[in-house]
Amino acid sequence: MISSLLPSILQHENISRICEDGVYITDRRLLPFQKKEILCHDYAEASAAIKDMVTQGGGPLEVALNTVLYTYLHCPEHIRDAVVSLSSARPTNTTMKRELESVLRRCESGEDMSAVIASVFERYDALYDRVSDTGESVLENGDGILTTCFPEHTFMLSVKKAVMNGKDITVYVPETRPYLQGAHLTEPCLREMGVRCFLITDGMAAHFMREGKIQKYMTASDLALKDRTVVNKTGTLGNAISAKYYGIPYYAFSLGLDEGKQKDDIIIEYRSGESVKRMGDMEIASSSASALYPCFDIIDPELVTGIITDGGII
Amino acid sequence: MISSLLPSILQHENISRICEDGVYITDRRLLPFQKKEILCHDYAEASAAIKDMVTQGGGPLEVALNTVLYTYLHCPEHIRDAVVSLSSARPTNTTMKRELESVLRRCESGEDMSAVIASVFERYDALYDRVSDTGESVLENGDGILTTCFPEHTFMLSVKKAVMNGKDITVYVPETRPYLQGAHLTEPCLREMGVRCFLITDGMAAHFMREGKIQKYMTASDLALKDRTVVNKTGTLGNAISAKYYGIPYYAFSLGLDEGKQKDDIIIEYRSGESVKRMGDMEIASSSASALYPCFDIIDPELVTGIITDGGII
Repeated sequence: MISSLLPSILQHENISRICEDGVYITDRRLLPFQKKEILCHDYAEASAAIKDMVTQGGGPLEVALNTVLYTYLHCPEHIRDAVVSLSSARPTNTTMKRELESVLRRCESGEDMSAVIASVFERYDALYDRVSDTGESVLENGDGILTTCFPEHTFMLSVKKAVMNGKDITVYVPETRPYLQGAHLTEPCLREMGVRCFLITDGMAAHFMREGKIQKYMTASDLALKDRTVVNKTGTLGNAISAKYYGIPYYAFSLGLDEGKQKDDIIIEYRSGESVKRMGDMEIASSSASALYPCFDIIDPELVTGIITDGGII
Repeated sequence: MISSLLPSILQHENISRICEDGVYITDRRLLPFQKKEILCHDYAEASAAIKDMVTQGGGPLEVALNTVLYTYLHCPEHIRDAVVSLSSARPTNTTMKRELESVLRRCESGEDMSAVIASVFERYDALYDRVSDTGESVLENGDGILTTCFPEHTFMLSVKKAVMNGKDITVYVPETRPYLQGAHLTEPCLREMGVRCFLITDGMAAHFMREGKIQKYMTASDLALKDRTVVNKTGTLGNAISAKYYGIPYYAFSLGLDEGKQKDDIIIEYRSGESVKRMGDMEIASSSASALYPCFDIIDPELVTGIITDGGII
């Protein structure tokens, strides 16, 4: 049901698919200019592709599920290694690790893997549908919404449902350097769904808040804790602080709080500063410059109005 | 005296110079990859170059002074037209307009133009020197400094003097999209001056504040009012709000407050959204995307700790 509402790049087969020779992953780094799939012949190649940011957001989970199934079908003796390798490909993504370990347990207790994996996909689709109903309920007619990075299924479905319900919605999309997920993924998805949207640079959000153009700030979350701490793509924190300053509520979507984790447990990935010095293939800084790339922000609970979850707004 | 301290691109002859055929302007849009000068044969071409962002910050003033002198030497009957045309090339830059009108008055009262223009350049050099002494006094040993865009002479000299006085200083430089002045100008200048600096994306400043790496936030200002309102490049506002949230002082440099202006008089230039969709020659967004480019931020007085001026810190 939700697939008819989703933008094309979030349809399962456009994220990742299994074939005879391995698992295809759509290379999101090339979108929207080029649609190209990368073929991973085994779990090691799939893990490397996830590490290389071929896909992101919810993409790694779908890739990992397909890779585990492919491994099961072709080299079942490697399935445990596959789960370990894939889980460590994106350390901040604890959901993926949890799901893969659950799949492994069900596999080891003798369940049919194809059915297990299919059930996980179905469970997520139903979850996206319910969480986005809650997200839609937060949106009001006339709202300007700021987001950051690529907020994927739950946000896209929330906005789409709001527009289908006759609400007039405008989304402001920061380009999200260094990988430009806002420019490459979020803006094209919203436009494809018929949602009015404007691309801006990462430094412009506060300006539009000050002008009264933004009524809500909404992002995905790579991790959300019970105490309402949110971890999300670099840039999320600064916008959350600006939102608080202007009295604008900030909501983060989460498919499931990380119940066990404490704030002090959070490991922030630092990626190579070379990403900051490049824009795709183009050098944008001196090769001798030193650059830093902490790729996630920790947003403290006092900045978070609510986390939109399957259990309502926390 | 200050020229021995300044990074090369801020030396007068590397900003703009007069020759027989017109006025050369160093094209800052190509730095640091390419050093190229554009020759403007008359004031109309120089005004167009300023509008096209060939130079920026204090560059337009130096170009305008040289262009007025060139016009005076070759077509003195056009000098009034030149002042009007150059003044309107960058409406936010009221300093340029004021200086050009003053030069015009002195010229019309019979003063020698070469001497008048030379005296303006000398006055600015002395001003940079005094203001940066005040800037230096704000910097403390061990400080991490955040800036935004290209804060030019006063900031560069302040930091250079601090380092020469034995203070350990680290500067965090946001790349400053869409024109990347941080990556292209600020970072190379600091490195050339031997100041430790890190390039970051525009969304990362709050992260480093939260980590305790930033002790001061310092920018130039395109305009500063008596009530402490600052106008500066897009991105300045969000960082000022984050600084306030983390209790970090924000100082803006100003060569002279705009005494007459009220906040409501401020005209914010909107430039073409096409700049946001490009990175130099490279397309970074779909051609059918709608993008917005308000190129300056208004930073309200409650966010500004002090304005560093020739009269001390206001």
